[in-house]
Amino acid sequence: MKVLITTVPFGNKNRLPLDLLKKANIEYLINPLNKKLNEEELIEMVKDFDAIIAGTEKISEKVISKANKLKHISRVGIGLDSVDLITAEKNGIKVSYTPDVPAPAIAELTIGMMLTLLRSMHVSNSKMHKGEWYRNFGKRLSNVTIGLIGVGRVGIRVIKNLQGFDSPNILANDLSKSVKELDLPVQWVEKEKIFKEADVVSLHLPLTKLTKDLVKKDHLTSMKKDAIIINTSRGGIINENDLYNVMKSGHLSGAAIDVYENEPYDGPLKEIERCLMTSHMGSMTTDCRTKMEIEATEEVIRSLTGGSLKREVPQQEYDVQRESL
Amino acid sequence: MKVLITTVPFGNKNRLPLDLLKKANIEYLINPLNKKLNEEELIEMVKDFDAIIAGTEKISEKVISKANKLKHISRVGIGLDSVDLITAEKNGIKVSYTPDVPAPAIAELTIGMMLTLLRSMHVSNSKMHKGEWYRNFGKRLSNVTIGLIGVGRVGIRVIKNLQGFDSPNILANDLSKSVKELDLPVQWVEKEKIFKEADVVSLHLPLTKLTKDLVKKDHLTSMKKDAIIINTSRGGIINENDLYNVMKSGHLSGAAIDVYENEPYDGPLKEIERCLMTSHMGSMTTDCRTKMEIEATEEVIRSLTGGSLKREVPQQEYDVQRESL
Repeated sequence: MKVLITTVPFGNKNRLPLDLLKKANIEYLINPLNKKLNEEELIEMVKDFDAIIAGTEKISEKVISKANKLKHISRVGIGLDSVDLITAEKNGIKVSYTPDVPAPAIAELTIGMMLTLLRSMHVSNSKMHKGEWYRNFGKRLSNVTIGLIGVGRVGIRVIKNLQGFDSPNILANDLSKSVKELDLPVQWVEKEKIFKEADVVSLHLPLTKLTKDLVKKDHLTSMKKDAIIINTSRGGIINENDLYNVMKSGHLSGAAIDVYENEPYDGPLKEIERCLMTSHMGSMTTDCRTKMEIEATEEVIRSLTGGSLKREVPQQEYDVQRESL
Repeated sequence: MKVLITTVPFGNKNRLPLDLLKKANIEYLINPLNKKLNEEELIEMVKDFDAIIAGTEKISEKVISKANKLKHISRVGIGLDSVDLITAEKNGIKVSYTPDVPAPAIAELTIGMMLTLLRSMHVSNSKMHKGEWYRNFGKRLSNVTIGLIGVGRVGIRVIKNLQGFDSPNILANDLSKSVKELDLPVQWVEKEKIFKEADVVSLHLPLTKLTKDLVKKDHLTSMKKDAIIINTSRGGIINENDLYNVMKSGHLSGAAIDVYENEPYDGPLKEIERCLMTSHMGSMTTDCRTKMEIEATEEVIRSLTGGSLKREVPQQEYDVQRESL
């Protein structure tokens, strides 16, 4: 039995997942290119493996068609936009994920981004490192209106983290009805109201055909001139080109982007000093990453040794992809 | 009656303080050099003014000796290290300040710095703007030990802001006995234990002769190799030269410095990419700054029109300066 581990780094901060595989007599190969694989690279690699411990690289119909022995895709993380669930299902390939683990790390990164942008810390830091003293009048979390689009595992944590800041005013939008019954300290509103009224807009959504390009030029220009926008969810939910053009024109006082349409990203947003850019690090804390790797590995061991999966992707996720075909 | 306003910008986001002075028939001059004044510049300017609405520039014995009409120094802010209280008292000059207003803004900046440093967001941002994809394994606030040295108005707010993050483990140190009776969710310990055990050390102290160079090489090297240190209080509490040398040697995973011995700062710390630098912006939020300016102005109007001061600096602050003479 052989497992391909595409997500890198892996077993780096804690070797336990690799030790677990060894103990279960499962061979493994860690992605030797040490970067996010493109379709061709993955096709080259995937043949003869029984399972993939996967990052966010695209596992497309074409990849699956070449994976002659594949029985299980075990995602390290929560997003499923990269996996063609329908084709996997047709080919009898099980898909599991680790949906609960990354949320606290992503939420903390988001709060850090809010505080950084509200005070333009990143701009001051960049100028100070060039020897330029730059004082900016900022705003306090407690005094602004925060708009959350998407209130799932991450959004709920963001709301929790915000509670130490004199209960700021939170507008929220989500398609699910059940989250509205949780009695969260937010006001449920339409997305349009969030764009128009919030000083801070933060996206906590999966990438689906419904959310692709959800935020375009019109939404960005409908935001207050000094508002900020944060995306720690998935690249492609904000149209990157529109964000660049709108910010270039002077609109928005800042943005924080952790995720990009193509990663690693090296595009024009880097010209915008007030755009805070990180490198898809939402779940990159030692505790969360280790827990995700262990959960994903245990799932592979279970599936390859005839056990039943604990975190199989629910049918609802397949429906989302089916509906958007 | 004439007031010299040395702190700049002033009346910039909200003209109310200037309007209040006009209405009270008090002439004013806003520091025409538009920067923090040095002793000589202030001496040149201060003659013939009845009051100063002051920033953090040094109001020394020499300055006071040239201020032939001065009756009142109204500090916009909380720190009194810049004012020679003893000489002011000898010359019958009243001193007031605005101690409560800046704390929420400074605390939020501090939390933003903690989250930024724990995830190396500033380093990733700097590299991303150069086209370099840089993923860092960080830590979560909820999983680290936070050490607060100084738990006054700002420290208490920091503890409050932290409560939304699964009640992290907080070690705290303060000389005052009364703060220990507040039942704060912290463990009171010696400073040495904080340096040795905390992953995040944050300073919330006034600058006095007791706290000058409080943090030197030995303290910094006694910290964990991957710990971080934050100073949003006053320059000079951490020895800047020692911080530079210790970080240059590779110790500490980050530092965040908002205050410097000499401001505007343009020194060697800017060579250290993992040192997050801001430009004394702790109280620089529109709401806090405006409130501070209004409070300081109302105090000047009261003193120049024969009223009694509301926020006169307490004797305890004079004692601190007297003791350290």
